[in-house]
Amino acid sequence: MLNTKIMPPAEGAYSYPLLIKRLLLSGVRYQPDQEIVYADKLRYSYRTLNERIQRLANALTAAGVKAGDTVALLDWDSHRSLECFFAVPMLGAVLHTVNIRLSPEQIAYTMNHAEDDIVLVHDDFLPLMEQVRGELRTVRGFVQLSDGSATPTELPLLGEYEALLAAAGSHFDFPDFDENSVATLFYTTGTTGNPKGVYFSHRQLVLHTLNELGTFAGWDGQALLRAHDVYMPITPMFHVHAWGVPYVATAMGVKQVYPGRYEPNTLVRLFREEGVSFSHCVPTILQMMLECEEGKRTDFSGWKMLLGGSALTLGLARQASERGMLVHCGYGMSETCPLLTLTHLRGEDLALPMDAQIPERIKTGVPVPLVDLRIVDGKGNEVAHDGVALGEIVLRAPWLTQGYLHEPEKGAELWKGGWLHTGDMASIDARGVVEIKDRIKDVIKTGGEWISSLDLENLISQHPAVASVAVVGIPDAQWGERPLALVVCVPGTSLDQPAIDLHLQQFVASGQLNKWAIPRQIRFVADIPKTSVGKINKKLIRENELAGR
Amino acid sequence: MLNTKIMPPAEGAYSYPLLIKRLLLSGVRYQPDQEIVYADKLRYSYRTLNERIQRLANALTAAGVKAGDTVALLDWDSHRSLECFFAVPMLGAVLHTVNIRLSPEQIAYTMNHAEDDIVLVHDDFLPLMEQVRGELRTVRGFVQLSDGSATPTELPLLGEYEALLAAAGSHFDFPDFDENSVATLFYTTGTTGNPKGVYFSHRQLVLHTLNELGTFAGWDGQALLRAHDVYMPITPMFHVHAWGVPYVATAMGVKQVYPGRYEPNTLVRLFREEGVSFSHCVPTILQMMLECEEGKRTDFSGWKMLLGGSALTLGLARQASERGMLVHCGYGMSETCPLLTLTHLRGEDLALPMDAQIPERIKTGVPVPLVDLRIVDGKGNEVAHDGVALGEIVLRAPWLTQGYLHEPEKGAELWKGGWLHTGDMASIDARGVVEIKDRIKDVIKTGGEWISSLDLENLISQHPAVASVAVVGIPDAQWGERPLALVVCVPGTSLDQPAIDLHLQQFVASGQLNKWAIPRQIRFVADIPKTSVGKINKKLIRENELAGR
Repeated sequence: MLNTKIMPPAEGAYSYPLLIKRLLLSGVRYQPDQEIVYADKLRYSYRTLNERIQRLANALTAAGVKAGDTVALLDWDSHRSLECFFAVPMLGAVLHTVNIRLSPEQIAYTMNHAEDDIVLVHDDFLPLMEQVRGELRTVRGFVQLSDGSATPTELPLLGEYEALLAAAGSHFDFPDFDENSVATLFYTTGTTGNPKGVYFSHRQLVLHTLNELGTFAGWDGQALLRAHDVYMPITPMFHVHAWGVPYVATAMGVKQVYPGRYEPNTLVRLFREEGVSFSHCVPTILQMMLECEEGKRTDFSGWKMLLGGSALTLGLARQASERGMLVHCGYGMSETCPLLTLTHLRGEDLALPMDAQIPERIKTGVPVPLVDLRIVDGKGNEVAHDGVALGEIVLRAPWLTQGYLHEPEKGAELWKGGWLHTGDMASIDARGVVEIKDRIKDVIKTGGEWISSLDLENLISQHPAVASVAVVGIPDAQWGERPLALVVCVPGTSLDQPAIDLHLQQFVASGQLNKWAIPRQIRFVADIPKTSVGKINKKLIRENELAGR
Repeated sequence: MLNTKIMPPAEGAYSYPLLIKRLLLSGVRYQPDQEIVYADKLRYSYRTLNERIQRLANALTAAGVKAGDTVALLDWDSHRSLECFFAVPMLGAVLHTVNIRLSPEQIAYTMNHAEDDIVLVHDDFLPLMEQVRGELRTVRGFVQLSDGSATPTELPLLGEYEALLAAAGSHFDFPDFDENSVATLFYTTGTTGNPKGVYFSHRQLVLHTLNELGTFAGWDGQALLRAHDVYMPITPMFHVHAWGVPYVATAMGVKQVYPGRYEPNTLVRLFREEGVSFSHCVPTILQMMLECEEGKRTDFSGWKMLLGGSALTLGLARQASERGMLVHCGYGMSETCPLLTLTHLRGEDLALPMDAQIPERIKTGVPVPLVDLRIVDGKGNEVAHDGVALGEIVLRAPWLTQGYLHEPEKGAELWKGGWLHTGDMASIDARGVVEIKDRIKDVIKTGGEWISSLDLENLISQHPAVASVAVVGIPDAQWGERPLALVVCVPGTSLDQPAIDLHLQQFVASGQLNKWAIPRQIRFVADIPKTSVGKINKKLIRENELAGR
């Protein structure tokens, strides 16, 4: 404490830890009759939500769960997941939302790594749990989550969720404790190695919630989410708490619709039938919803859609917008809780026709309040905010993971120099708008400058004779790295180095490209190496080049 | 920390104290050209605001201000006050916003009690400072704040504000420190005794800001304050940080208009000329604005007005609404930073014609997120939420003063039983809506129940022959207290006890009054004792009654 004249008591009645239970004070209180919907199966009021959270706490306590324990959850997006989002951390336990998209081996790895005590498992994942049960070293019991009649299972069951809740008391006094206690845990996958555990404290989740509450509502006068909206998540609740929005929606007292397993036709139907007005998703599922049978015959007007996870293309954004959606973008990572930036349109942007707003809407956006986002060069120095210069995004914010669970070396690497390193390369323009251009492993470091391989690919691909292109950095004695381009020509055409060079000179003239970024080495090839999921395999291209293949 | 399996480092790179400097990260960054206006005198951009905050920090540092010092400010609402809201606490010093409405003796008392080191004083308050200078025991120097040419003064000046800023460097690295460090201090006056100092930490102000940002923007779909609004305070910046809104407006990057000294015609003109769309004020000044010369010829459409400080009457609310204002109410105190509750209209309320919404809009509202507001009886037990039962409002929230500066006994009284006691008596209805009915010192405690003296006065005053009425509680051997009513009859009429009794029986029949609350003692008097500011002097009425006068 800096103050010498005013020395308040270190701890006192006034102290108020930021605990997740406090997020239940508002919505439940002033919208007690507001609805929570589990699609096509169940609907109940906030009053009931509040009671069920207390019943769940009693049921878990009876099952032996105590502060410091870890409760694993394998479920589709449901009212049960929402109840767990509150009841488990409010007991002082940690909620491990299991990533059900991992392989059985990886799921068993994460459950052992997290030292899960009790597992709540939906009928659909019983076979999976039966398969890996022998490998789980810490699990003491399972609770079955059934949508209808319970599926028979060989697992040692503590009971079925609804039966346990019905048998439990409807009142629970949730304790106060240190706001820095861990509340949630989940696993993120990289391209190599085991999944890594990231975790967030009560304080972090409460601050993240307050921030989303304000920015979603008031950020740029467009109001993504306000009290009279209807919310349905379309990024899974097991992944970064569905971007934290269930906490926000509950604190605001809005109607919430949980869609179960994501199926595009069902999601579109729920939008229509439940009056959904705010969702968030990744571009892939947006495309699926626009193109599915239900989607083709649906007017999407009134659906505010927050996109994230990967870059939204201009074409898809225009398509969604023409169909009636209001499109916004956000940026975040598993490690960041996740919200870091949001599209921010100024008054003059909003006065433009919607089509003219789209290029601004699909940018990475501007950092939300309290997020200190910088772009830095390899030495940690900030680079110019001119919309061109590239730097790695590094962060400080109140809701960043403290590290990777039980992997202090990887955590130290993430936090090197006191800043969380995202591995994303971006520019920032004079208005503060961030644009992610590349992953740091793919960016080309040449003569102390950074070139975005994606930018170069975009520019080269605009030549009419280029069918596809990949750009990587290869070692260079003088410059550190130099760009190498692999070009596949449109069948029936041919190209040479001077033709590509001439093509790129126009972008140098218009200021979009630095002269020294023009590749000196171009290989015309029959095809470009891809990974198993269809992405350009830049790692293999670099290895091949070095090996002289 | 509860978690045994996950033990994060106690302090690390990830730790992020909630400091006021973080509120400058957003607005300045994405609205650098947005305006700050000091009415009729100066306008500059957020970019300049950011630079001037750094210049002010350098100037104060050069003047010897260091972490833990106290800087006093005597100014009208201005850009300078806004700069001090940030620069002073960001240095680790405490900003004492001096209540310029106190008497010179009280002002000197507060400045000695706060141990002010440096005083920033507007030309208009130089005579005041010259008058009390000999009594100030800790002040080391004065900085003059001039709107035009500086007024000559005998005070030992460190310089004039603008000259000091011009001479200071434009860059300052604000340090990190403990978020629980005190940031602001000001004095609140009761009916008796010396002014009491209340103080708030960086953490408290950041949390209060985040909460207002979200609730003002999204609370009930009406958006009091969003990014494209224009903000002008009409509750003074020296009083509870102008309800904290300058911090919110700055974090959101909205245009801000500081009106200097409050003059109704000027305020109305600024609303029109600057496009002001959000303000907050007390009912008295609202009435003055509606009735002043400029006000009479002004259409107030588009002005969202948050009322607080004292109860807004139905009549004034209707009048403001008919003139075009959108009226909202909030509740708070100096001790509470201040925001506790806001008007909250549900979808069905908003569908009503505006006139029908007014009775809901003038209620105390519902508690904002994170505020744990309860109404309790004299034993601390919660009373029913039936819209009728009265209890004292007690609070827990993240932004309540820790006590009164240097007065631990009064602080302990404020926080008795671990809850901040407001002294306000209220009911809460089934929808969670709070209505303040009385001050606890005026409420009548009878047979274990509480009767609102204001409610009784309202009901009695509805008799056509009643000109004015005062109700107090007087000791009663059987019931503890019983109500006593003083009634002044309309000239030319007369009343007796049975007539009042008959009048009140109708309210018993309609459920608005309990039978045992009907006063058994009524005195018909020529006039009712008033205080110097025109309020009913209930203390004196009780004393007179006890003395048999």
